[in-house]
Amino acid sequence: MGSDSDLPVMQESAKVLEEFDIDFELTIVSAHRTPERMFDYAKKAAERGLKVIIAGAGGSAHLPGMIAALTTLPVVGVPIQSKFLFGIDSLYSIVQMPSGVPVATVTVNGAKNAGILAAEIIGTSDKRVSDKILTFKEKIKKEVENKAHKLEDFGFRQYLKLTGK
Amino acid sequence: MGSDSDLPVMQESAKVLEEFDIDFELTIVSAHRTPERMFDYAKKAAERGLKVIIAGAGGSAHLPGMIAALTTLPVVGVPIQSKFLFGIDSLYSIVQMPSGVPVATVTVNGAKNAGILAAEIIGTSDKRVSDKILTFKEKIKKEVENKAHKLEDFGFRQYLKLTGK
Amino acid sequence: MGSDSDLPVMQESAKVLEEFDIDFELTIVSAHRTPERMFDYAKKAAERGLKVIIAGAGGSAHLPGMIAALTTLPVVGVPIQSKFLFGIDSLYSIVQMPSGVPVATVTVNGAKNAGILAAEIIGTSDKRVSDKILTFKEKIKKEVENKAHKLEDFGFRQYLKLTGK
Amino acid sequence: MGSDSDLPVMQESAKVLEEFDIDFELTIVSAHRTPERMFDYAKKAAERGLKVIIAGAGGSAHLPGMIAALTTLPVVGVPIQSKFLFGIDSLYSIVQMPSGVPVATVTVNGAKNAGILAAEIIGTSDKRVSDKILTFKEKIKKEVENKAHKLEDFGFRQYLKLTGK
Amino acid sequence: MGSDSDLPVMQESAKVLEEFDIDFELTIVSAHRTPERMFDYAKKAAERGLKVIIAGAGGSAHLPGMIAALTTLPVVGVPIQSKFLFGIDSLYSIVQMPSGVPVATVTVNGAKNAGILAAEIIGTSDKRVSDKILTFKEKIKKEVENKAHKLEDFGFRQYLKLTGK
Amino acid sequence: MGSDSDLPVMQESAKVLEEFDIDFELTIVSAHRTPERMFDYAKKAAERGLKVIIAGAGGSAHLPGMIAALTTLPVVGVPIQSKFLFGIDSLYSIVQMPSGVPVATVTVNGAKNAGILAAEIIGTSDKRVSDKILTFKEKIKKEVENKAHKLEDFGFRQYLKLTGK
Amino acid sequence: MGSDSDLPVMQESAKVLEEFDIDFELTIVSAHRTPERMFDYAKKAAERGLKVIIAGAGGSAHLPGMIAALTTLPVVGVPIQSKFLFGIDSLYSIVQMPSGVPVATVTVNGAKNAGILAAEIIGTSDKRVSDKILTFKEKIKKEVENKAHKLEDFGFRQYLKLTGK
Amino acid sequence: MGSDSDLPVMQESAKVLEEFDIDFELTIVSAHRTPERMFDYAKKAAERGLKVIIAGAGGSAHLPGMIAALTTLPVVGVPIQSKFLFGIDSLYSIVQMPSGVPVATVTVNGAKNAGILAAEIIGTSDKRVSDKILTFKEKIKKEVENKAHKLEDFGFRQYLKLTGK
Repeated sequence: MGSDSDLPVMQESAKVLEEFDIDFELTIVSAHRTPERMFDYAKKAAERGLKVIIAGAGGSAHLPGMIAALTTLPVVGVPIQSKFLFGIDSLYSIVQMPSGVPVATVTVNGAKNAGILAAEIIGTSDKRVSDKILTFKEKIKKEVENKAHKLEDFGFRQYLKLTGK
Repeated sequence: MGSDSDLPVMQESAKVLEEFDIDFELTIVSAHRTPERMFDYAKKAAERGLKVIIAGAGGSAHLPGMIAALTTLPVVGVPIQSKFLFGIDSLYSIVQMPSGVPVATVTVNGAKNAGILAAEIIGTSDKRVSDKILTFKEKIKKEVENKAHKLEDFGFRQYLKLTGK
Repeated sequence: MGSDSDLPVMQESAKVLEEFDIDFELTIVSAHRTPERMFDYAKKAAERGLKVIIAGAGGSAHLPGMIAALTTLPVVGVPIQSKFLFGIDSLYSIVQMPSGVPVATVTVNGAKNAGILAAEIIGTSDKRVSDKILTFKEKIKKEVENKAHKLEDFGFRQYLKLTGK
Repeated sequence: MGSDSDLPVMQESAKVLEEFDIDFELTIVSAHRTPERMFDYAKKAAERGLKVIIAGAGGSAHLPGMIAALTTLPVVGVPIQSKFLFGIDSLYSIVQMPSGVPVATVTVNGAKNAGILAAEIIGTSDKRVSDKILTFKEKIKKEVENKAHKLEDFGFRQYLKLTGK
Repeated sequence: MGSDSDLPVMQESAKVLEEFDIDFELTIVSAHRTPERMFDYAKKAAERGLKVIIAGAGGSAHLPGMIAALTTLPVVGVPIQSKFLFGIDSLYSIVQMPSGVPVATVTVNGAKNAGILAAEIIGTSDKRVSDKILTFKEKIKKEVENKAHKLEDFGFRQYLKLTGK
Repeated sequence: MGSDSDLPVMQESAKVLEEFDIDFELTIVSAHRTPERMFDYAKKAAERGLKVIIAGAGGSAHLPGMIAALTTLPVVGVPIQSKFLFGIDSLYSIVQMPSGVPVATVTVNGAKNAGILAAEIIGTSDKRVSDKILTFKEKIKKEVENKAHKLEDFGFRQYLKLTGK
Repeated sequence: MGSDSDLPVMQESAKVLEEFDIDFELTIVSAHRTPERMFDYAKKAAERGLKVIIAGAGGSAHLPGMIAALTTLPVVGVPIQSKFLFGIDSLYSIVQMPSGVPVATVTVNGAKNAGILAAEIIGTSDKRVSDKILTFKEKIKKEVENKAHKLEDFGFRQYLKLTGK
Repeated sequence: MGSDSDLPVMQESAKVLEEFDIDFELTIVSAHRTPERMFDYAKKAAERGLKVIIAGAGGSAHLPGMIAALTTLPVVGVPIQSKFLFGIDSLYSIVQMPSGVPVATVTVNGAKNAGILAAEIIGTSDKRVSDKILTFKEKIKKEVENKAHKLEDFGFRQYLKLTGK
């Protein structure tokens, strides 16, 4: 990520990778404040054995696109919700990459989804990971179904009280 | 893709996959007009041995997100430029997926980038493909450099005439 | 609705249907987390005797459109105000359906209006319901007129004090 | 509709209602240029036996909302694509109705979808119509499947030539 | 105005008219909830001797445009900041009137400006009022100049402390 | 207006003022290219006997607001449709004036509406003009009614042929 | 700046100029409330020896553009975040200047960046200043690197606790 | 500029610099396709004696911001009008730079304005250039005044004919 102010959002990627038992590193690389560090990081990523890079940035969010320009690894971009227009500037800066240099853009503030997407990418060649994703998907399905049954059993007024929503 | 009207755009994915020598299939699956077909397609994709799914759609672009809901494979979403607001509706429908179900969204009409991203994903476990991406990146670098030298040599007025821009 | 986090908004549909004495059921069906459940629910809705389906969803709001793809019943879509851009993403995802598969979209967060619209639809073949709507419209007219008279009688400074606005 | 300049779009509603064998009338009623006519039309619609009103308008598109204010019938609103911002102004004017007065808003320029939605509404109490919708849905499913098979058989290059896209 | 929830904003028009010693009336007229009252109000406004009508509304803000359709008086429209997208929906609904039926639209939540504009309109035939506007403009100029001198004298740090900003 | 490139749009104001028999002058005053001329023009407008100023401008459309800052006359602002974003930039620049300095903003490219609004303003103290507006409103009502009857008589297919739409 | 309400933002320009040891003056000049003062200020700026003018304004933000129209000095414009749409109106009003009259627009609320840009401009002919900018850039690079090392050393959970984010 | 497809726009910067007799170089440097070249170019620009860098780019327009990250020279950014949303994506990518790294952003497609701004910057230490800007401003003022007189003399109908607008 480009700044430690993005960490409260970006930690969700780390947590989901932990949940999928996937090794990762988490650091700060700023396209605008440490351009040499970014160059270095991106150029060496593949040979260091990284498989996927998740890059989160807000505003004129150049980090994901610049990383993508400097590596052949897939780059997942997380538009961080800026103070200006709720992250539309971040989203456009990340997703509208020119032909030849894609960034796999996820939901605004979607660091968790970025982690899952990274896992899916790794899962294309690692059955252990794709199995974990399947289990994860079953789990969130069950959660919804349980809530649905609870809601049907208790009625919406009681449900709202019970869950404190 | 959801409709054959998207084919003029989506063929760019096919062409770039051909260029990278990656096997692919190309068909029409509509979330709204053939929901059963979509279910079937997405549910069986992994066991049929597919590695990545590229899904292009416009307007209320539900195809990429619904495919992502039904598979553990990474799904690349291409927002097709709609008549309404230049594809902003398509972009939001594809990128703003809820937590748990990411879509790897690329540029509006970015079918070529979708193909390259799919190649990068496959390249994470297939050195032959990641080498081809490296070569591809070198090629587009060379093209820019050649143009730069030509422009510097001829001056902008002559360059515009020569290239007919 | 797609998630119980939408319940505080969506309960307004339930309340207005209660007010119009119309039978309804309220449950959670997620297009992205429980796609099979959604398929099942939508496919059987008409034969189970439902007349209208109200579907609320936010962000990449696919639920109303997917339900509409799977039934011949009219589907009323409620764009839930997302954290991103105040629900514009939800609105576009729901309203911009392709030709052949309409969703009757209401105001962002307009769950109450969705309930009224459902009642109006049922009222096309049930005079008891359309009479209740007429009464409801008279009631809200009276409320406005009463406020108008109070405002004219007291003046705006006193009115603001009395109503604590 | 509010102006005969909307007729090239709005005729699609008429055509789809003809296809579903549903009686309809088609006329011009302007909220801004013929307000009395609009009042009269909307107030008498229900007693004249109309079941649904489809109203199309562009820009400051007040017609659907004003009709909805004056009747208990369900009103389907079609935002006409304006010259300004591709119909976003029309869309917001129609969909963002206040609590108590819903408009069933469809796709920008979605006159065909408005017709189908009207048919679905009538189909809630007329099995002949809901059967026709089922047939219609089967037909558009078949069309997509046929195109899919043709595309798979011929390959995308040949398909593009054959269909002239 | 269309609802008493707009009164905290719209009272600013009343206050500025008081300041300019211009007679006015302030009431609630809802286009959607009391359409007959609105018709009546607008149709009789000119013969009752009103010179200008200020109409504030939010969301699908039809009140100013419908009033304008029903009178030959100039209508000043105030887009009220809605919960959805900060009043962009209100703004578009009010300003994008069709040819033939203008609304004099002011700033979002600009009730004070609406009052001043109404005064300027009345001032075109009432020198007493246009003189008051001149005085008002001098007053706000003086206020800015005083602040400027204070800021220059004290420096920005001291100024911020003194004014508690 | 700020540039003669706006004349094809702004002539509509002139034409409608001619139709209402209202004296006017039409010239070019650029806020950015001829700021002194603008100052002079605006400062002397009231004493020269002008009643209303119509100002059209596009992009960073400062002309209407600057004129309004320099006169006590009502200023009608016409946002000219720019190449960038269809005039949204023009609209925001004109309508979002600060407290104390209103601009009566009309439809994007709404020069005709600006002329009518100017006439309505003059009509507040000139019965001859307000009568002409009444006549004008009757005329456009008749036109719509005639089209409505023609459409009802001929049916939409025949009507489209007859009118060549 | 146009109003002392912008001072909490605009003081950042002052602070950064202090940090770079560049003389400056800070005052209030309103395009709309003190147009004569603005004229005077802008016309005399160059001969008074100013090198760059930083102008901050919000909403219909005319100040930077009008200053630019009245001087040959470079003008840096700061769009102040308005209550309406997070400063998009301010941004468009400032950046979309017509051909011939540029404004050097920075980030919304980017008063600090405006100060740095002004320093860079002065640095083009003052090595002392450009050296300070180099030092400043080194400093912010170091800060990021320090944070990166700290994050890598402590891990993200500990880092969040330590920094209280 | 990032691509020779931007040359038809960006040549306007070159032309205006020629008009002001300012030496310049014009080349292609792509942030995404030739990142090393960009690094090299930006890092060496100051020591090579450049005073200002004009960078034009569209879509995910990273070039101006990355150049700004790598130099202490002022960087003027030109958002090139993309096919997607008329250059809003380009504008946000360029203008919304983080604190510490400003880009002097001009009008969308404003290459001419970028040239003038660069001249103004150079003019802060080169009287010959600032004098030329003064002359340029006088010239465009005269042009507007001539058009104004012509329009007043001929009337708008004749003027439109004469100028063929």
